[in-house]
Amino acid sequence: MRQMSAPAAPLDDPALVEVLDYVRRHGPCTRAALVEATGLSRASVGQRIAALSTYGLLGEGELGRSTGGRAPRMLRFRGDAAHLLVADLGATSIDVAVADLSGALLAHIQEPADIAAGPVAILDRVDAAFRRCLAEAGPLDTELWGIGIGVPGPVEFDSGRPVAPPIMPGWDGFEVRRRFAHYGVPVWVDNDVNVMALGELTAGIGRGVESFVFVKLGTGIGAGTIVRGELHRGAQGSAGDIGHIQLPLTDRSVVCRCGNVGCLEALAGGAALARDAEAAAREGRSAFLQRLLEEKGSLDAADVASAAAHGDAASVALIADAGRFVGDVVAAIVNFFNPSLVVIGGGVAGAGDPLLASIREAIYRRSLPLATRNLIVHRSTLGDRAGVVGAATMVANEIFAPQYLAHWLDSGAPVASAS
Amino acid sequence: MRQMSAPAAPLDDPALVEVLDYVRRHGPCTRAALVEATGLSRASVGQRIAALSTYGLLGEGELGRSTGGRAPRMLRFRGDAAHLLVADLGATSIDVAVADLSGALLAHIQEPADIAAGPVAILDRVDAAFRRCLAEAGPLDTELWGIGIGVPGPVEFDSGRPVAPPIMPGWDGFEVRRRFAHYGVPVWVDNDVNVMALGELTAGIGRGVESFVFVKLGTGIGAGTIVRGELHRGAQGSAGDIGHIQLPLTDRSVVCRCGNVGCLEALAGGAALARDAEAAAREGRSAFLQRLLEEKGSLDAADVASAAAHGDAASVALIADAGRFVGDVVAAIVNFFNPSLVVIGGGVAGAGDPLLASIREAIYRRSLPLATRNLIVHRSTLGDRAGVVGAATMVANEIFAPQYLAHWLDSGAPVASAS
Repeated sequence: MRQMSAPAAPLDDPALVEVLDYVRRHGPCTRAALVEATGLSRASVGQRIAALSTYGLLGEGELGRSTGGRAPRMLRFRGDAAHLLVADLGATSIDVAVADLSGALLAHIQEPADIAAGPVAILDRVDAAFRRCLAEAGPLDTELWGIGIGVPGPVEFDSGRPVAPPIMPGWDGFEVRRRFAHYGVPVWVDNDVNVMALGELTAGIGRGVESFVFVKLGTGIGAGTIVRGELHRGAQGSAGDIGHIQLPLTDRSVVCRCGNVGCLEALAGGAALARDAEAAAREGRSAFLQRLLEEKGSLDAADVASAAAHGDAASVALIADAGRFVGDVVAAIVNFFNPSLVVIGGGVAGAGDPLLASIREAIYRRSLPLATRNLIVHRSTLGDRAGVVGAATMVANEIFAPQYLAHWLDSGAPVASAS
Repeated sequence: MRQMSAPAAPLDDPALVEVLDYVRRHGPCTRAALVEATGLSRASVGQRIAALSTYGLLGEGELGRSTGGRAPRMLRFRGDAAHLLVADLGATSIDVAVADLSGALLAHIQEPADIAAGPVAILDRVDAAFRRCLAEAGPLDTELWGIGIGVPGPVEFDSGRPVAPPIMPGWDGFEVRRRFAHYGVPVWVDNDVNVMALGELTAGIGRGVESFVFVKLGTGIGAGTIVRGELHRGAQGSAGDIGHIQLPLTDRSVVCRCGNVGCLEALAGGAALARDAEAAAREGRSAFLQRLLEEKGSLDAADVASAAAHGDAASVALIADAGRFVGDVVAAIVNFFNPSLVVIGGGVAGAGDPLLASIREAIYRRSLPLATRNLIVHRSTLGDRAGVVGAATMVANEIFAPQYLAHWLDSGAPVASAS
């Protein structure tokens, strides 16, 4: 692709980005749909399609619906024009994948890992997993265009450096990009919840939804917010840090790691669930959890979910409480932000319907009728894959951003200047 | 202006809107700045400037800074190309003004009014005030291009109809647009808080700020949110309805008009302040308020503010409590949304520094350090004028939106189709 000569269309035109963006976000469409959506003339659209096709980014696919004459060819984004390396680091696991530009996964590895092992050890494992994934994806006839990584803590997006991440000792200010400089492609790093929200936007239940909130219930609790089809990172990149919002009418005895009382995360996070389940086991309130604790030596949120699924009353109560706490905070977000969709993801979301029912109940009790009239509260449809799919979306969004696109189409190659 | 022949530049081009938008939002700028900001070529920018100048919307003003050669002329938006009629209806007052396209006020009338008098009586008064304002503004040599109205309740923006507004009996579904159809120009209606946020964005402390939250503390409490320079209305247009967010650790005895307990508005709204001040007066906790109550027969939030300014301890305590309640909710918003600026407006904001101090204290206690690192919490700089200035911005934003602009430039006149 890079060997082709530069096309006639000028690259200084926002219309080029607009056409590519529309096809990327809306899936296969006709020229007529593009003309209508962009407000550009048919000739202008045609010129941009030609340019993007020359670069291998647009292709003509199946026939669309005829409106009388010849059926139009559908234009589609060629996600397979290049490949990306992506990773989603959680508190207790890493997901690594080879993805294409549309977030389709060519290979995907998941393994347990402790983020507290520090950046050197963890990123060595990520790099090794990148190589195994590349081998697994088989010989690829496309080029590597970028790397995307999600981490479980706040990130200064412009530099890709974690900023005082509470559950990531040793990561503060670490140069994640430099660690992958040997690939010679740009690297982007963001908070894992932001990345998951992008995943749902691209390939999950958030597809085509203008504004929605993704809530991750894992060891920690956080939110990723999409506004008008784009991630809202906030002024300091800390938007979505909802784990430390104070709950109404709370038990004041639980002190959060942030030093305050009544934080959502201290009452409904994965660590809180595990703590409360172990207490229930030790205090003889659940024979089921007691047996599990004796077998395993410790309990986690997944154990509570499975115990609840087996009808253990103490676990059902724990999950209902957690759901209510989450719902109280989400209700406030719904009143403030009025999204049409709230997606619940992360490991604790594995507790399924009983958790969702409690969350919904609290939202309906505390949000205004107008705000909940058409509100959908749904579990993540990508599950474990939300992070890696979203990391691919993040990279594609950056590569295809106006300034960057003109720059690298001009120079004939993705540039590593970002890293 | 409308007599001029249509210029050569095609109106189907998003670049036209982009150039106009940039100059409107960023103030006077050079051609070079436009080239850099839009990513368009110098020739493309020049063509758009010519088109917009033909229509009287751009003009060349003072000389800019020379970078060696001849000093460049600064391009500026010609807000005086037309005029608008705008109104901001509060629970207890109406503000009416004649404004230009940039929100500059040519005449401004404020008078007390009870929104509960219903739409017929209130809008008759607005119309009468429009006429007085027009007379006061003197003979205008520009045309009326639109009407903008803010109301103290939820509005379905696309139709301009209030939707079950709690403090506006009789207004539900009322055809506000039709009432002003005799002017023959389009009419837009929105929630007053949204309109005030637009005012601060155009001409207040929010100017040039990408994302911020405007909090109105009046009879009711609400928020208007700007994301990437645009209003976030939410899926049902109910974004910013923060008055019914539940407060942590609250006195459960105060039932809100929504039926829940612990709502922010029931504890810190203007009506709540008045209620608590009257109680303090009756129970002998404040000689100052007691005297005021005997004189006036009833108290309002402004009385509490003035009593506090005179050093009345009970009033100082009431304002400190209200500030803390507001701050608790704003802290949650700061964690979720991470704005760089929170603007405090509305009548109760008249309580000034003591109120702001309490709000700030609560935010700093409950928000994460990263989110408050550069956070500014500031009183509205437009004060009473935020609503009418913002209503003018709303109308200009709609008139200059891509679809609408092409439509009316084409037809040679603003069209009333929206109404």
